[in-house]
Amino acid sequence: MKKNALLATTSPHKNLVSKFSEIRNHSVEICRPLEIEDYVVQPIVDVSPPKWHLGHTTWFFETFILQPDFPGYKVFDPQYNFVFNSYYETIGARVIRTDRGNLSRPSVSEVFKYREYVDRKMEEFFQSGYFTESLESLLELGLNHEQQHQELLLTDIKYILGHNPLFPAYKRESISQNRNDEDAEMLCFSEGIYEIGFKGEGFCFDNELGRHKVYLNDFKICNHLVTNKEYLEFIEAGGYDDFRHWHAEGWDWVKQNKAKSPLYWHYIDGKWMNYTLNGLQEVDLNEAVCHISFFEASAFASWKGKRLPTEAEWEVASQHLDWGKRWEWTNSAYLPYPGYKKEAGAVGEYNGKFMVNQMVLRGASVATPPGHSRNTYRNFFQTHLQWQFTGIRLAE
Amino acid sequence: MKKNALLATTSPHKNLVSKFSEIRNHSVEICRPLEIEDYVVQPIVDVSPPKWHLGHTTWFFETFILQPDFPGYKVFDPQYNFVFNSYYETIGARVIRTDRGNLSRPSVSEVFKYREYVDRKMEEFFQSGYFTESLESLLELGLNHEQQHQELLLTDIKYILGHNPLFPAYKRESISQNRNDEDAEMLCFSEGIYEIGFKGEGFCFDNELGRHKVYLNDFKICNHLVTNKEYLEFIEAGGYDDFRHWHAEGWDWVKQNKAKSPLYWHYIDGKWMNYTLNGLQEVDLNEAVCHISFFEASAFASWKGKRLPTEAEWEVASQHLDWGKRWEWTNSAYLPYPGYKKEAGAVGEYNGKFMVNQMVLRGASVATPPGHSRNTYRNFFQTHLQWQFTGIRLAE
Amino acid sequence: MKKNALLATTSPHKNLVSKFSEIRNHSVEICRPLEIEDYVVQPIVDVSPPKWHLGHTTWFFETFILQPDFPGYKVFDPQYNFVFNSYYETIGARVIRTDRGNLSRPSVSEVFKYREYVDRKMEEFFQSGYFTESLESLLELGLNHEQQHQELLLTDIKYILGHNPLFPAYKRESISQNRNDEDAEMLCFSEGIYEIGFKGEGFCFDNELGRHKVYLNDFKICNHLVTNKEYLEFIEAGGYDDFRHWHAEGWDWVKQNKAKSPLYWHYIDGKWMNYTLNGLQEVDLNEAVCHISFFEASAFASWKGKRLPTEAEWEVASQHLDWGKRWEWTNSAYLPYPGYKKEAGAVGEYNGKFMVNQMVLRGASVATPPGHSRNTYRNFFQTHLQWQFTGIRLAE
Amino acid sequence: MKKNALLATTSPHKNLVSKFSEIRNHSVEICRPLEIEDYVVQPIVDVSPPKWHLGHTTWFFETFILQPDFPGYKVFDPQYNFVFNSYYETIGARVIRTDRGNLSRPSVSEVFKYREYVDRKMEEFFQSGYFTESLESLLELGLNHEQQHQELLLTDIKYILGHNPLFPAYKRESISQNRNDEDAEMLCFSEGIYEIGFKGEGFCFDNELGRHKVYLNDFKICNHLVTNKEYLEFIEAGGYDDFRHWHAEGWDWVKQNKAKSPLYWHYIDGKWMNYTLNGLQEVDLNEAVCHISFFEASAFASWKGKRLPTEAEWEVASQHLDWGKRWEWTNSAYLPYPGYKKEAGAVGEYNGKFMVNQMVLRGASVATPPGHSRNTYRNFFQTHLQWQFTGIRLAE
Repeated sequence: MKKNALLATTSPHKNLVSKFSEIRNHSVEICRPLEIEDYVVQPIVDVSPPKWHLGHTTWFFETFILQPDFPGYKVFDPQYNFVFNSYYETIGARVIRTDRGNLSRPSVSEVFKYREYVDRKMEEFFQSGYFTESLESLLELGLNHEQQHQELLLTDIKYILGHNPLFPAYKRESISQNRNDEDAEMLCFSEGIYEIGFKGEGFCFDNELGRHKVYLNDFKICNHLVTNKEYLEFIEAGGYDDFRHWHAEGWDWVKQNKAKSPLYWHYIDGKWMNYTLNGLQEVDLNEAVCHISFFEASAFASWKGKRLPTEAEWEVASQHLDWGKRWEWTNSAYLPYPGYKKEAGAVGEYNGKFMVNQMVLRGASVATPPGHSRNTYRNFFQTHLQWQFTGIRLAE
Repeated sequence: MKKNALLATTSPHKNLVSKFSEIRNHSVEICRPLEIEDYVVQPIVDVSPPKWHLGHTTWFFETFILQPDFPGYKVFDPQYNFVFNSYYETIGARVIRTDRGNLSRPSVSEVFKYREYVDRKMEEFFQSGYFTESLESLLELGLNHEQQHQELLLTDIKYILGHNPLFPAYKRESISQNRNDEDAEMLCFSEGIYEIGFKGEGFCFDNELGRHKVYLNDFKICNHLVTNKEYLEFIEAGGYDDFRHWHAEGWDWVKQNKAKSPLYWHYIDGKWMNYTLNGLQEVDLNEAVCHISFFEASAFASWKGKRLPTEAEWEVASQHLDWGKRWEWTNSAYLPYPGYKKEAGAVGEYNGKFMVNQMVLRGASVATPPGHSRNTYRNFFQTHLQWQFTGIRLAE
Repeated sequence: MKKNALLATTSPHKNLVSKFSEIRNHSVEICRPLEIEDYVVQPIVDVSPPKWHLGHTTWFFETFILQPDFPGYKVFDPQYNFVFNSYYETIGARVIRTDRGNLSRPSVSEVFKYREYVDRKMEEFFQSGYFTESLESLLELGLNHEQQHQELLLTDIKYILGHNPLFPAYKRESISQNRNDEDAEMLCFSEGIYEIGFKGEGFCFDNELGRHKVYLNDFKICNHLVTNKEYLEFIEAGGYDDFRHWHAEGWDWVKQNKAKSPLYWHYIDGKWMNYTLNGLQEVDLNEAVCHISFFEASAFASWKGKRLPTEAEWEVASQHLDWGKRWEWTNSAYLPYPGYKKEAGAVGEYNGKFMVNQMVLRGASVATPPGHSRNTYRNFFQTHLQWQFTGIRLAE
Repeated sequence: MKKNALLATTSPHKNLVSKFSEIRNHSVEICRPLEIEDYVVQPIVDVSPPKWHLGHTTWFFETFILQPDFPGYKVFDPQYNFVFNSYYETIGARVIRTDRGNLSRPSVSEVFKYREYVDRKMEEFFQSGYFTESLESLLELGLNHEQQHQELLLTDIKYILGHNPLFPAYKRESISQNRNDEDAEMLCFSEGIYEIGFKGEGFCFDNELGRHKVYLNDFKICNHLVTNKEYLEFIEAGGYDDFRHWHAEGWDWVKQNKAKSPLYWHYIDGKWMNYTLNGLQEVDLNEAVCHISFFEASAFASWKGKRLPTEAEWEVASQHLDWGKRWEWTNSAYLPYPGYKKEAGAVGEYNGKFMVNQMVLRGASVATPPGHSRNTYRNFFQTHLQWQFTGIRLAE
């Protein structure tokens, strides 16, 4: 999830200052259980090393706020632009993403020094009198950007530890189990014109803007997520061996990756085990299934004789759903809303540039930081990816 | 374009018989200018050898009509199922598509014998009294399937000859130039509910079915296609060097493929040359641009400050457009219409299995066989492909 | 096998003229059983389409003899240099070898016209009075070059037909079976100084030159080649599953290619079948094993508690061996003999450029044209290749 | 360099004990300048993370000495066999080498605990009375194995730091410059029988054994290594653009990797800079050229009108050469000496398994630990590798 925002905000200044410090601290908190070594590695191209996330979110404030707008600001290290830049092509040559896992330097302690330096300068800036209301939206964007990376931090940490043969736990204390015991039910909605898209005040990303009418047919959507129990039935019924339920591209993915279960599931001594942030545990049948690709979500729905909802259906129904536990794959491609426009300049440069060959996910997950979810939020990923906290909701 | 159909048809029997012979002959006609060698090669995975198209379309009638329904039918060669099968996984092990270009046997003359055998048996079947009305829709599907392959035949032949260093012409006589001299104009449409999807009698593919309401905002769409002249301006303005106009994935495609012009364009001695079915010729500035990927279409539109239409906008406006010269990239992902259902059995097996990570193209092209186009037709291809006769229409 | 020559020859002119016509005809003879389609395809990068061999050998005479030395010679088609050039980098841009299989044109009949044109011009040249003795060595080189391609023609044809699911036979009449019934025996040779390398008159390639002394320890070498029976014992003893007999790189090759038998062997309905030039047949246990990689030859020898001979041992022992049925893998890397020197100019350009990461094969095979073998001949291939007529002789 | 040994040793017990502690400490010393992060990364498959080297060398003593022979020995962590195993296929499933860089755990401090545990147990074992003379050769093998990894440690650390955009120095104090000011001279040797291979007492690897006679022609060999100055002349004369000097495979390597200088050279602002263990510095023209592939060494020699020596020539001449600064590429393939035999069991398992497609390097380098070089030592690497401290000596 790499995206950006554009907004008019009316949040008061003081509020933002405390939010800044809260959110910045939360990133550090997420990393507290790590060993230094865990900050450095990059097992696959989609995963970034934790220290890169810490540096990159900091670089955002330095590059887009301090450097252009805080008179006399001295860059912490001019080379960091090269190391912590991401996809912002106007800013300069970016580090090839696959190379991030090769960089032992800057060290973790240097990255923390970088964070502290930029945080202190931001505080000085807040109190300097130079900070103008016009910067508030950029600041809020930077904070939402950091929250997005907080979710990625957690998913990437899980990937790093969960792909180590020692299966180290991230936390020893039990993490909430999201049990889902009640009976699921299909909710009915009637044909007609509905409105979707962001409305109201506060922050949103630009891809949510352009509230607009859509025409929906009658549809039904399940109030609950699919559980591990149901997904296991799919596995045991040979779901991964029956091409009829898969997209052609999904079937190729199954074959090439010898996929036969969600990510982190291991069949050991006759039992399905699951690597969780608490370590390796038996699969909890009542939990919502997690870490599945769009291909798997879609094949499961087909096997059930149902389908995935569209994002419009999801949004219309959202207030009746138990959303927030898993990012829910929809059957909507990630495309611009009517009237969507690219922003000018570096921050806006990539608006929309991911709007091809990705599918929309709605909701939020256990890894989403508090205060960073809403029912108009459009998350998106490529169809083969499993490493996010993704799940399935059925529609028909 | 690999797809299938399902329908109830009321076409009279006699009509179908003559259509059968017409369409079958047309495939042979398309191949008439070829040398035997041209039938065999497969320069890239997306291109199939012409003899494979001739065999595969024949295999369809043998496998789905003669074998199950014509009593006493004897298969021409049991091994051909293996050689000419395509993506129908229920029918049996398919030939890996990349291998098609390695198969020197069956020879071209054997493939023609196969066609003649099956055609004769089909005629016998028509007159046998065994042919029932219930087979008509399957027959019509087979004919539409063959027409789709007729278009592919031509695009693949162009690719094979156009990637030979000798640049042999397919036909010496001049092929219609599709000149586009008149002034282009943006047509305006108003916000509201519209209906799209197939309506009426006659054949359609199942992905067109489910005529349904959509809500569209105000939009404008150009009555004409983008010309080579306009596209050349994009090239000369550095369009291929400016990442701001490209999707992130499109930009990677440009870099990796060193893309700098439509397929078949060559910059030779200071002039842009274009390989056409008549051989290598100077680029005709008044012609509609052709052989561009979705990435290029989208980047061009962005550079113009415009966008591509959605498929719903296109269909609503279609009667006012000069469509039929190029397959027109839309900004709609290829997804099921509301209420779309998979069919049972082998023919229906893959219905919908391509509905991921592809974009819809609307209209038809100079390569589309006569009688095989309508304004509800949903063609689809992957975003990087250039080898079809694809073009651009702008919207805003 | 792509190499070159350098020599002083005393062959009489008249002799060469008749050899020219004989050898040129032999290439055409080899292709006589082919369908036109068989001339065109290239299933893997190591295999060239037969028509390319026919054109390339012709191009050699045109480029190195007719064009520079026959006054008034007019090139058949200036584009053919591009199409039929090989690895001679000084001559001009070469066709990327992987692309050879995409070229449907020039057609087979055009290639035969090209051969006829050049052959006629060569005859005119022979009788013109312009042909000087100094060209004889180049002519002889061209003929030996063509003979090398005759062997490749046969190996490539076998690959093309043997990888077609219809398994067409190349010839219906039985091809000699090379039965090997007598008892094998280890021949003993004593420690001491020996001489190896070409000696005497007639043609040789430059890599054979520099007859020189080598010091050999006592060694034993088998008078017979390893049979299919012995090789089958290795397979059945789990030879392909026991890493201890393999080089590390060979073991990776086994794993990656799921190697479990010589090329062309198929285990069908409980029997080992073998694709031969006569079609698919049961494995003949008394025949010398064929179509194995160096990795397999070496693993087999290790499993037998023996080793492969060095090329010096082989040459010293050669007059006592039944060589000529299989190219025999030695454990000698392909490296220059002492005093080896690169030649100047285009013909000599690549002398030695293959002398790295290849192993020497000695002897000759059933595919080697008559008159093209001698006991100093140094053939060489990469260690993973199976498509030549390669076999195993043991030493200790 | 991954190999093994076999030997009869007469070294006294006491000597070995102090050697054990010295050598084990030296590995730790090499790592002292590192940050924790530097221990973890693996930028390319040929480079191993430093902590892996530290663990793997320790694992050797645990697995081959303590576990089988020290009664009551308790393995430090049973999972470490999986993590620190290498290529010893008889010991168990090995970690895929490319994955080593993904393993953040065990942490560096745990690896050091592992070393301390095994060192303490080894000392207990030495004093236990259980240690028998028959284990001495295995112990000595383990120590030589560790010394090989000490050299790799340094080359891998250089690669890790030298491929970081911050170019951190390994050591700030100046590292010896290996200046080479004196005039080079070609030394002459006469044709005849010579002996090569290990002779005498003390340790050697099994690939050096089998002292044997070779017959050499007259040859000349340079007393000095090729300098950066000479190599720069090759670069400036267009050596990397002239295919005539390269092996075909080397030329492909140049093209594919856009090679144009030794590894670690950077052309910055009109100057050739060189990353050294002291950081980025201007190229020192008088130093011996370093970090070149076999392909480059061979092309340079060809450009000079000379050649690389064979390993036999090198060994015969060695006492007259200034060897020890660079591993010197020879033109000898890495093959077994006459009479070479595989050892039984796990330690001996891979003897000889690298004897294909690699070239021999002779001498030693600035990275070779003290006491680990001799003139019969046969180092070997693949022809494209640059990351070792490799250089060039000319012969003719």
